[in-house]
Amino acid sequence: MYPASLEKLIEYFRLLPSVGQKTAERYAMQILQLPKEEIENFSQQLMKVVNDIHRCPICGNLTDRQYCPICEDQQRDKSIICVVQEPKDVIAIERLGQYNGVYHVLHGAIAISKGILADDLNISSLLDRINENTKEIIIATNSTVDGETTALYITKLLSSYENLTVSRLASGLPMGGNLDYADELTLMRALERRVKI
Amino acid sequence: MYPASLEKLIEYFRLLPSVGQKTAERYAMQILQLPKEEIENFSQQLMKVVNDIHRCPICGNLTDRQYCPICEDQQRDKSIICVVQEPKDVIAIERLGQYNGVYHVLHGAIAISKGILADDLNISSLLDRINENTKEIIIATNSTVDGETTALYITKLLSSYENLTVSRLASGLPMGGNLDYADELTLMRALERRVKI
Repeated sequence: MYPASLEKLIEYFRLLPSVGQKTAERYAMQILQLPKEEIENFSQQLMKVVNDIHRCPICGNLTDRQYCPICEDQQRDKSIICVVQEPKDVIAIERLGQYNGVYHVLHGAIAISKGILADDLNISSLLDRINENTKEIIIATNSTVDGETTALYITKLLSSYENLTVSRLASGLPMGGNLDYADELTLMRALERRVKI
Repeated sequence: MYPASLEKLIEYFRLLPSVGQKTAERYAMQILQLPKEEIENFSQQLMKVVNDIHRCPICGNLTDRQYCPICEDQQRDKSIICVVQEPKDVIAIERLGQYNGVYHVLHGAIAISKGILADDLNISSLLDRINENTKEIIIATNSTVDGETTALYITKLLSSYENLTVSRLASGLPMGGNLDYADELTLMRALERRVKI
């Protein structure tokens, strides 16, 4: 009912998570209100992101360089690896300014009901990274059912490694919550009081 | 904290109505999950909309042609003009399949608290359209404070025209609601029982 190209834009907005018809229409209308250069930049930025952003071959975090800044940083303690579900979780922990190790981003959690199995996650490259210098793996997946399942799975995988401490964020995290929504104090306590599994 | 180009995309998503930081991040992450051609099309569609879509010089509705399809349609009764706030309201009424007149889109409503005055709306072109063939103006602005204010303002402007019926959608519409969220039956009743002001 809208002009064809507007209808199409609405369709594209519906690809975004939890955006229905009404919201997509509101977004498209807002686009028409913006100055032309702004939309031009928005449009170019979409393509730029797709071309620039890829996963760091070491840790799986998102980066626009060959490796992510954390893996490249020689000051970071490579002997501690913090395993998280999503890139936004790296940002949540980095914001504390307390953690000096490196990360490993799984890009999801095991969720059998949704058909997401261990093979769909960035787990095998975690095993490849572990060497004699690796002292500790901190499993910082969400404290949801899927996150706990994933933590258990990885713990089991790592149980054969000798001289490797596997820890889990302390139970300061509210159960059922997502890591990146936790307030900084809660997250910091959880990081300090991590327990050996 | 995210790579620069991703941060920038998140900023652009924040330009959309009621999108905060977390939502914008989720949108940007979803973009990274989409197939590359899909994003390319999305990006192109944004530019296409800006270049194609403009206001119909007669009624102010959005169109990608010289005039909108309703103004161009010789079968429509040009003697009845239905005045609405937004293009989506045209679609809501068209969906009924009951109205055969034409429209006039104001692109907003008078809202003094937000600094939106009558001059900011597409009102002067409404007066230009009215001629001896015009029989009725149906004012179908929302039944909110702003919509009612606008209806009153337009009614006053039109009071000097002789032989012109000015009507308002019947009070079947729930007060405080937006026109395009009304169910079809309510909207149809409101259209049928419109009252002469």
